[in-house]
Amino acid sequence: MQPENNIAELTALDLREEYILVRNLSEKICEPLEKEDYVPQPVPFVSPPKWHLAHSTWFFETFILSNYLPGYQIFHSDFSYLFNSYYNNVGNRILRTNRGNITRPTIETVYAYRQYVDQHMAIILESVDDSRLLDLVQLGLHHEQQHQELMITDIKYILGHNPIFPVYKIGGTLFDPENTEEGFVDMGEGIYEIGHKGNGFCFDNELGNHKVYLHPFSISKSLVTNEEYLNFMAAGGYQDFNLWLDEGWAWVNDNQVSSPLYWHNIDGTWFQYSLEGLQKVNPKAVLSHISYFEAAAFAQWKGMRLPTEFEWEAAAERLNWGARWEWTNSAYLPYPGFTRAAGAVGEYNGKFMINQMVLRGASVATSPGHSRKTYRNFFHTNERWQFTGIRLAR
Amino acid sequence: MQPENNIAELTALDLREEYILVRNLSEKICEPLEKEDYVPQPVPFVSPPKWHLAHSTWFFETFILSNYLPGYQIFHSDFSYLFNSYYNNVGNRILRTNRGNITRPTIETVYAYRQYVDQHMAIILESVDDSRLLDLVQLGLHHEQQHQELMITDIKYILGHNPIFPVYKIGGTLFDPENTEEGFVDMGEGIYEIGHKGNGFCFDNELGNHKVYLHPFSISKSLVTNEEYLNFMAAGGYQDFNLWLDEGWAWVNDNQVSSPLYWHNIDGTWFQYSLEGLQKVNPKAVLSHISYFEAAAFAQWKGMRLPTEFEWEAAAERLNWGARWEWTNSAYLPYPGFTRAAGAVGEYNGKFMINQMVLRGASVATSPGHSRKTYRNFFHTNERWQFTGIRLAR
Amino acid sequence: MQPENNIAELTALDLREEYILVRNLSEKICEPLEKEDYVPQPVPFVSPPKWHLAHSTWFFETFILSNYLPGYQIFHSDFSYLFNSYYNNVGNRILRTNRGNITRPTIETVYAYRQYVDQHMAIILESVDDSRLLDLVQLGLHHEQQHQELMITDIKYILGHNPIFPVYKIGGTLFDPENTEEGFVDMGEGIYEIGHKGNGFCFDNELGNHKVYLHPFSISKSLVTNEEYLNFMAAGGYQDFNLWLDEGWAWVNDNQVSSPLYWHNIDGTWFQYSLEGLQKVNPKAVLSHISYFEAAAFAQWKGMRLPTEFEWEAAAERLNWGARWEWTNSAYLPYPGFTRAAGAVGEYNGKFMINQMVLRGASVATSPGHSRKTYRNFFHTNERWQFTGIRLAR
Amino acid sequence: MQPENNIAELTALDLREEYILVRNLSEKICEPLEKEDYVPQPVPFVSPPKWHLAHSTWFFETFILSNYLPGYQIFHSDFSYLFNSYYNNVGNRILRTNRGNITRPTIETVYAYRQYVDQHMAIILESVDDSRLLDLVQLGLHHEQQHQELMITDIKYILGHNPIFPVYKIGGTLFDPENTEEGFVDMGEGIYEIGHKGNGFCFDNELGNHKVYLHPFSISKSLVTNEEYLNFMAAGGYQDFNLWLDEGWAWVNDNQVSSPLYWHNIDGTWFQYSLEGLQKVNPKAVLSHISYFEAAAFAQWKGMRLPTEFEWEAAAERLNWGARWEWTNSAYLPYPGFTRAAGAVGEYNGKFMINQMVLRGASVATSPGHSRKTYRNFFHTNERWQFTGIRLAR
Repeated sequence: MQPENNIAELTALDLREEYILVRNLSEKICEPLEKEDYVPQPVPFVSPPKWHLAHSTWFFETFILSNYLPGYQIFHSDFSYLFNSYYNNVGNRILRTNRGNITRPTIETVYAYRQYVDQHMAIILESVDDSRLLDLVQLGLHHEQQHQELMITDIKYILGHNPIFPVYKIGGTLFDPENTEEGFVDMGEGIYEIGHKGNGFCFDNELGNHKVYLHPFSISKSLVTNEEYLNFMAAGGYQDFNLWLDEGWAWVNDNQVSSPLYWHNIDGTWFQYSLEGLQKVNPKAVLSHISYFEAAAFAQWKGMRLPTEFEWEAAAERLNWGARWEWTNSAYLPYPGFTRAAGAVGEYNGKFMINQMVLRGASVATSPGHSRKTYRNFFHTNERWQFTGIRLAR
Repeated sequence: MQPENNIAELTALDLREEYILVRNLSEKICEPLEKEDYVPQPVPFVSPPKWHLAHSTWFFETFILSNYLPGYQIFHSDFSYLFNSYYNNVGNRILRTNRGNITRPTIETVYAYRQYVDQHMAIILESVDDSRLLDLVQLGLHHEQQHQELMITDIKYILGHNPIFPVYKIGGTLFDPENTEEGFVDMGEGIYEIGHKGNGFCFDNELGNHKVYLHPFSISKSLVTNEEYLNFMAAGGYQDFNLWLDEGWAWVNDNQVSSPLYWHNIDGTWFQYSLEGLQKVNPKAVLSHISYFEAAAFAQWKGMRLPTEFEWEAAAERLNWGARWEWTNSAYLPYPGFTRAAGAVGEYNGKFMINQMVLRGASVATSPGHSRKTYRNFFHTNERWQFTGIRLAR
Repeated sequence: MQPENNIAELTALDLREEYILVRNLSEKICEPLEKEDYVPQPVPFVSPPKWHLAHSTWFFETFILSNYLPGYQIFHSDFSYLFNSYYNNVGNRILRTNRGNITRPTIETVYAYRQYVDQHMAIILESVDDSRLLDLVQLGLHHEQQHQELMITDIKYILGHNPIFPVYKIGGTLFDPENTEEGFVDMGEGIYEIGHKGNGFCFDNELGNHKVYLHPFSISKSLVTNEEYLNFMAAGGYQDFNLWLDEGWAWVNDNQVSSPLYWHNIDGTWFQYSLEGLQKVNPKAVLSHISYFEAAAFAQWKGMRLPTEFEWEAAAERLNWGARWEWTNSAYLPYPGFTRAAGAVGEYNGKFMINQMVLRGASVATSPGHSRKTYRNFFHTNERWQFTGIRLAR
Repeated sequence: MQPENNIAELTALDLREEYILVRNLSEKICEPLEKEDYVPQPVPFVSPPKWHLAHSTWFFETFILSNYLPGYQIFHSDFSYLFNSYYNNVGNRILRTNRGNITRPTIETVYAYRQYVDQHMAIILESVDDSRLLDLVQLGLHHEQQHQELMITDIKYILGHNPIFPVYKIGGTLFDPENTEEGFVDMGEGIYEIGHKGNGFCFDNELGNHKVYLHPFSISKSLVTNEEYLNFMAAGGYQDFNLWLDEGWAWVNDNQVSSPLYWHNIDGTWFQYSLEGLQKVNPKAVLSHISYFEAAAFAQWKGMRLPTEFEWEAAAERLNWGARWEWTNSAYLPYPGFTRAAGAVGEYNGKFMINQMVLRGASVATSPGHSRKTYRNFFHTNERWQFTGIRLAR
């Protein structure tokens, strides 16, 4: 269940193939959709699938074609305004909350945009020999993979909040694996190396390989299952303020939270919305769609804690992972020596390094080859529409 | 420019024809749309076109087919939850603010729903002899006509807030007429009869024909033009608090309002978004898309006032009207003798009789045969996405 | 129980006496307060008693002393910023919501400010012969009387929302009269004269004596009692959406309203906070502290309605009144011929003529001589911290 | 400028003296206040001085007298509801946002409450031999010291947001020291011990003395001055999004921030509100009242960074400190081995360990003997009403 190796030391040929694979996957993810599903933004943090398809394309157009392909004509002069996500260096853009109101360009036009950009990217990829350009193409592909996972989770949010619970598709790999291994891995005290090393691709937030001193700890081989979490719920976990962080307790009460996202209690039985529709909760499957607040309260109830991201990385090779993004007890902050790149690309990660927690691992929705053991994912403590889970430490 | 007579004393044959005409018009309004345009709800008061098509159909299903057609099977058990607008007597429904997040049923299914209901309505309409049923069918048609106007204004809102200003369609009757007549009509002091009389259809809020004493007044033959309003703007109308109601002044400042809705100042020239796209403001055309607050401030600036709804109705036969819904200075309150009908139909109008102002007339977006001189339209004082205008009195 | 005549055709001597009486009453109202009670603003619509004392003084300073007393030096250059309420023509002022955060000037300084202004007003009042000035003094006194009632209701709000329910004072005239008269007054159809006539003082919103045609109606001699309202509550009045206006129903649910303001159900018995502390609800006393929404729902439940302000005024001489401000079913809008005065004084009433309902009568908290049968009080439909009650009509 | 040692290894006699000293200081801080100043809560995070005086007293009553003094009668049955801050284990309490609306008990009564509790505490302190009780008394004193600093900063907020800028008092130690030392301390790579050791008092969040590996770093001997920050402002620091965290940039724009808190530009000169009134900004004095966002942006502009809390502690003995709480780049999270105590005292620190940043040092407003080099203060990234400053690292 451990993710494959990531794209590394690619030849130009590899890169051309990789480009096609990644770009095709985005469209494949959308195949089961009706046109209507591409449009809405039910909450600000969920973007329309149409927007993801266009935005990941805009990324290639803006950072590569406009700078590196002589004579390139941008597809449409308003698309930068519509499909820039958060790059202040690139100019104004629509308010994030308005993405779901933009019905034009149509989906057909967005696919035409993708095709136009792909055709021009093919010219570039014929002869990549500029390492800066190679890096940008790789960044663009990894960026698109990030949006692939977001597309899946955003589609789940859109369909899963429809009272008629439409099926996305039957079958596939997006569903809930069961846990097979028991027990804890014991890790010894000492200095560990943390962060990316070597030539393979990584994001800037993984850089700055550095030393961390860890005290002895044990970390669970397995992720928490639905059954364990049902026990927490049955024991009154959502009602006992002593288990919760203060902000977590406010979150529970303000939002009347009493179960993971997508769970519904129908006549005494717990169901969950999955991409195959509404289904009974499988007690053996690994838990998903919980916030940091819930993960921390569960750990408190167990008399354990969440691992730090450093503990996680130190132990990673002895763990299975890849089913869920695993909340750690580390805040998302820069590594020693981190610096933001100049210009728009420098906005990619650094400016988000505050008030979020690090998640490690990968999930069933993560694109093949996208994650690695040094990968630092990050979300706010109340967010749970990703496939997030819990690994305990002590 | 005065609207045609409304549907009155219909035979069963007339009603069958009328049913088909009205129902077809709703679909005709949507013909120029892309599928994507049917989905969003950019602000709570704008509903998705898809929702309008389904809701007006649900009205016939719920109030007529389910009660009057023996053995009728409802099309889908969840549609009442999805497409009930505000009828508490009919049960729970999705929050109004979530209409734009519901991607399924698809548009295709909504059209199938319409067809299914129309086929069953045809059976009913073969032999309408129950006057209660006749009234309900008429109510259903007038209800659908109200949603036709809302569909047009909601479509305008959706497309008009897209930064690329898509065209709805070129040509047609939805555009801005010019004013041709000058001067004022003088009306004498005395007792006037107000409210609906006779057998023709009317809404319950028009009932209770009653006497009103009016002091002598003059009322303009013409509506205010863009040119007159541009003068108000040039004279600093949006900056002079003395012209505004206190809540109006707060509205101007909180929302940074400095022109009618859909107006854009591009390099010193005023443009407006029309359903034909972005166009230069025509000074001779009648003003549109202004709030009550703006209408009242303009009248104050002119040293005049808005007419009351009673003055308007007393003078109606001597006025041209039909281009704009005209803000009056009357609050939307019950006429003497008004009572709410029992059950869900009683929720149609009565429960909204507070904190809104009456508009009289009709607009270029009003369906043929829908309005009449006793018709009482009503909106909140800050709303301006309807085709609203100003007629002055003194 | 009908209020005394208002100040009318005053001689200069009368005016000097009246000035002293009114100004003293403001301070007498504050006598039972602790210093701490003068400070807070628990909700935006409740102002600190300290602010009322200063603002009513600022009114005399700004509109009279600064304009009419040669050589007058204002007491403190910042007080206009601190104690202007809503007069845009007079300049900037602190945000309304910040009144409770301003601890200085101290209460002692505010009393010194009052004394300073009173001393200078005494000079002016020695020799008032300018009718414009006479009018302004009268306006200032009526203005201060309005703030006297607000002080009482704001003090009640401040103390009544303290969990330890402090007593304001024992005894006095501020408490709940019982109803003594039964039955309805029948009024005939015809033309009635509405609005102020004669030389006595009135506010500008009462001017424009005009004719109104009324259909025959009956109006209750008595106000609704607590007992009648308890019956409404026992019959599920707060749970039956069919009784409520749509905005009223939202207000009930958003605010979890289930009784009048200041009522507390303690172990099955209804208590209310009065200015004498927490006391059992007296079933025979007239109901108080209800919103327009509640008044309208109650009337709907009774199968009756609220009178219009015109019906109320036409019948006023045959009614007892003075215990409660009585919600009418008339929106607060200008009378025919109303115009706003130029300058700041023109902001007094006219700019509030929207989205509020008229209340007629007077309450136990109204200052002696302040109200009259043409008096138009007005509040928003959700406000209920005034001594508001219900008179039914049919 | 380094703070004195903290209370440690106290004898019973020491403790009695310490109790009196600490309790007296709270009242001394309030001496310059007018009664009105004790009441308001201008924003939710600022509590009324009256509330601080009562809450710190309630702490002794609830955690010590009620449990350890046989026959103790609580002073008033409602005070727990009014003066509990956040201890869920102790029961319900008023909403935090309502503290400023509670005018009773009066200030006089609050002082009587203090006296009553002090008298009973004197009995307890005659013969403390229970180490659990000793710990609680010490905790109560340190708790009161924390509220002493909050009282000073809350008083500053209340007076400093009054448009007439009242003086708190002239003279004293609360003002802005100048920086005297230049240059950086260089620290070598290696393993450092972090956290409290020994018998002296510390909070639970300092416990768990543990090892941390630090890479070589340099840390400034001095805090950033107003002059340096004025340079940042002059260089357009508040306008350059590249310097800011994403949430910081939103904070700047949403709140229109363009200078530290309490700074006012009057005709081109920068003034700041100090507790001595409005004064010219002294360029040589150390900067104060800035948020984490501002600290991080300034460091980015300097091409440096903030130290981590571990770096800070490792270097502490070679730094002067005590003028400002210094923002670190460490999130407030538990040390290895941290556990929450059972019961209410366990709510003291642990439940706040999320979404806040650690500040180290002490400020001019910190009570004598209260801080130490292992002390972990923490605030949200947008908060700046404390005396917060910047120390740079690289």
